[in-house]
Amino acid sequence: MNYPNGIKKKETFHNISYKNRGMDLESDLNITNQYYRSIDKAHIYKKPTPIKIVKVDYESRHLATIKEAYFQEPSTTDYNGIYKGQYIDFEAKETKSTTSFSLNNIHKHQIRHLKNIVNHGGISFLIVRFVRLDETYLLKAQDLLLFLEKYDRKSIPLSYFQKKGYIIKNKINPRIDYLELIDQIYGGTI
Amino acid sequence: MNYPNGIKKKETFHNISYKNRGMDLESDLNITNQYYRSIDKAHIYKKPTPIKIVKVDYESRHLATIKEAYFQEPSTTDYNGIYKGQYIDFEAKETKSTTSFSLNNIHKHQIRHLKNIVNHGGISFLIVRFVRLDETYLLKAQDLLLFLEKYDRKSIPLSYFQKKGYIIKNKINPRIDYLELIDQIYGGTI
Repeated sequence: MNYPNGIKKKETFHNISYKNRGMDLESDLNITNQYYRSIDKAHIYKKPTPIKIVKVDYESRHLATIKEAYFQEPSTTDYNGIYKGQYIDFEAKETKSTTSFSLNNIHKHQIRHLKNIVNHGGISFLIVRFVRLDETYLLKAQDLLLFLEKYDRKSIPLSYFQKKGYIIKNKINPRIDYLELIDQIYGGTI
Repeated sequence: MNYPNGIKKKETFHNISYKNRGMDLESDLNITNQYYRSIDKAHIYKKPTPIKIVKVDYESRHLATIKEAYFQEPSTTDYNGIYKGQYIDFEAKETKSTTSFSLNNIHKHQIRHLKNIVNHGGISFLIVRFVRLDETYLLKAQDLLLFLEKYDRKSIPLSYFQKKGYIIKNKINPRIDYLELIDQIYGGTI
């Protein structure tokens, strides 16, 4: 796999603007996480894209240029960190579909990872944005796993997000306040 | 900063063998974390090296080759994950010095990050290997921060690791069982 979704998507989305939003989900999350850090609310980061480096030119001691490298499949989710002493771990994806979220968007080992985090007491979830609907959902990893156990389907219908998920309202600052939902969902337990 | 320690070190260490050890700290930690995952003890990963991609060749739909990229300074530590429901976060470094660990090895924002993790209730530490002594120490982030507050020095003497740190014994499997020490240090609290 030399062509991760992240990169491909960016290419696509740069040329299209949906409603009043010029930002993609990744940018929104980066800004949101930066905001959380700035007010010392949570320390959650996006992991760097995994890259296999093949050739490096060491032109000088302090300037190394990577001349050949390839994208690698991520073995975990994109985001993790700490909030109220709890381990937070999630994956974020956009879809252009208006009816469902294709499970091709998540790799098997990412699902295994989400399962491990749940089993070890972490707070784990999926953030999915239906770009054309301008709707962003938070779905607990438990509910994702439940869906996968119950149904043999290649995509999760929007209705499942509407029923089991939580909608994340677009705000100015932070742009997508997912921790507000985490507070609501986990209530007094964190 | 286009030349992170990780890359530089590997280059250096490939040609030198110390005592019976052929492996560097990063490899030892990767194998150890893999072992922890395989027995479902903990889910701790090394973050990918942050890289700024400048030029990509999209030769075909499924093969993208990065043709120009640069190493970036990491904004956090290298390792994080979950153990017994707790957020774990640490940095690992090797030194060839036999007397002290230079603080040039850790960036200011990494120290700030370790401080944030401690303040938010995570378990945070430093693993330092004195390669020529074949000694690997675990130093709690709290004791690193204490040192920085107390002393205006450019390096931490080995004696501080001997006094405040915990030695990680070399084992066969896992190679460096740092979670055994975490159990000892945090005892019944986790």
